[in-house]
Amino acid sequence: MNSEVNVVVVGSIGIDTIETPFEKKHDILGGSLSYACAAASFFTNVGMVGVVGDDFPDDYRSLYKKFGINLDGLQQIDGKTFRWSGVYEDDMINRRTLSTDLNVLETFSPMIPASFQNAPYLLLGNITPELQLNVLDQMKDVQFVAADTMDLWINIARDSLDDVISRVNMLMLNDSEARLLTGKNNLRECADTILSMGPQYVVIKKGEHGAMLVTKDRIFLVPAFPVNTVMDPTGAGDSFAGGFIGRLAEKTHINEAAMRESLLYGSVVASIGVEAFSLDNLVKVSKDDIETRFAALVDMIRL
Amino acid sequence: MNSEVNVVVVGSIGIDTIETPFEKKHDILGGSLSYACAAASFFTNVGMVGVVGDDFPDDYRSLYKKFGINLDGLQQIDGKTFRWSGVYEDDMINRRTLSTDLNVLETFSPMIPASFQNAPYLLLGNITPELQLNVLDQMKDVQFVAADTMDLWINIARDSLDDVISRVNMLMLNDSEARLLTGKNNLRECADTILSMGPQYVVIKKGEHGAMLVTKDRIFLVPAFPVNTVMDPTGAGDSFAGGFIGRLAEKTHINEAAMRESLLYGSVVASIGVEAFSLDNLVKVSKDDIETRFAALVDMIRL
Repeated sequence: MNSEVNVVVVGSIGIDTIETPFEKKHDILGGSLSYACAAASFFTNVGMVGVVGDDFPDDYRSLYKKFGINLDGLQQIDGKTFRWSGVYEDDMINRRTLSTDLNVLETFSPMIPASFQNAPYLLLGNITPELQLNVLDQMKDVQFVAADTMDLWINIARDSLDDVISRVNMLMLNDSEARLLTGKNNLRECADTILSMGPQYVVIKKGEHGAMLVTKDRIFLVPAFPVNTVMDPTGAGDSFAGGFIGRLAEKTHINEAAMRESLLYGSVVASIGVEAFSLDNLVKVSKDDIETRFAALVDMIRL
Repeated sequence: MNSEVNVVVVGSIGIDTIETPFEKKHDILGGSLSYACAAASFFTNVGMVGVVGDDFPDDYRSLYKKFGINLDGLQQIDGKTFRWSGVYEDDMINRRTLSTDLNVLETFSPMIPASFQNAPYLLLGNITPELQLNVLDQMKDVQFVAADTMDLWINIARDSLDDVISRVNMLMLNDSEARLLTGKNNLRECADTILSMGPQYVVIKKGEHGAMLVTKDRIFLVPAFPVNTVMDPTGAGDSFAGGFIGRLAEKTHINEAAMRESLLYGSVVASIGVEAFSLDNLVKVSKDDIETRFAALVDMIRL
């Protein structure tokens, strides 16, 4: 692999404390950026744009390097790293946030290093729409931009979010967020409304039920791999987005077939990620493991 | 089409009163048997085994005939037809039963007419396991049997249900029922447990999220067609089962490919059914409409 950065990802880096019905984990590596970069790194050279505090463990930095993530855009500033804690209900889907401490994220100003400027792919992971816009402004020549978002920004930063949506190629969001954003209930109507806001591609995520890619004239039902054990669903959407854009960056042309196949890879990486906490499983698997599960998933949707 | 009955279906015929957030309908035709037979009738000759009371409207009998359903196994006895009423929540998925009056179903004893005896396919629609067993006993030479069930029988008639499960080729049930039946949470584990109880095929239904066919060594993720409007989800599982077995009966061989394609047709017919109350939409559409939606659904899962 050529060492030039192909995919730039911006998002949050967090230190998470997560409780599931089975286990509680303290101070594990999380954040949309961590999951998305790790997932993308299986396919292409990925550059991380984010911030940590001076409490950020060296081990976690080493972990990023183990994935081969380019850290030129990772700032370390005085203060504490963003922290999140939450608890999952018995269904392992619904979760309750116990605490959120923005810490260094509050004053974060992303800087795209020179070595990232020519990257053709950009993933705006979940972070404030203002920061997503800031990054967009710094990457004028980017060819394909996918953006994730969350309910919080729909509720408190709608104008900036609309601005983001109008400037990206793809918006990824989950089903309840799509409904919140559009005020419609039916997901096809939600997608059509979002398409009219700018993007050519809308991906509506449905957790364990997969996702749906909607374009002007076609729909692709992205299957979720039925895993045997869900240990921790945190970051699944970010791994999905990262795996998708990483795989897409390997393609010569962006077309419907490339989109569909890349989304399937995203789904595969996400399914591997949820089988353990944090990046524990992603760091263990090889590209071959991903190919094996990809083949298995393809077999599950074959007529 | 040859007029010999290829698929026999047993189940309930009901007169339903259904309330959704949008509309309330009184005394409409329902019951697992109505939906399943209507769905199967698009593909093959289907024979109905069921019971109605002397209050059963001629119009509904005519409707069955309009679908070309063979009514030789339809008994009319003194008393009232089975009645059910329920109300759907805003999500159009969860529902609350307001009343159930078994009426003539209480003393129903299914009789398989001579003209149905040689049918190779049997669908045991949702009805008491005792009645399902009774029908199985009357059709010794049947080649393929699919059975549906519900939480009620898992709770109050477990022994008979286990007997049914041990004698059928395929068990179809929804996700919460699969969990209730097996005491496991993960759907793959549920399916494996059910396979060990006898059937070669387990279909776990997930409502708007599709279904999953599990066999000893393969899984097929049955997609649900993303409809624009869900008017009434009642009977969707029955239409799915009926469309499936009707299509399967057209095949020369039962193999994995035939299963997968037939389940996809079942999914298509179910998606058409939920766009209106009762059989209102199914009676309006043609085989061509089904083929058109089938092609659209295939395009949505194509890589």
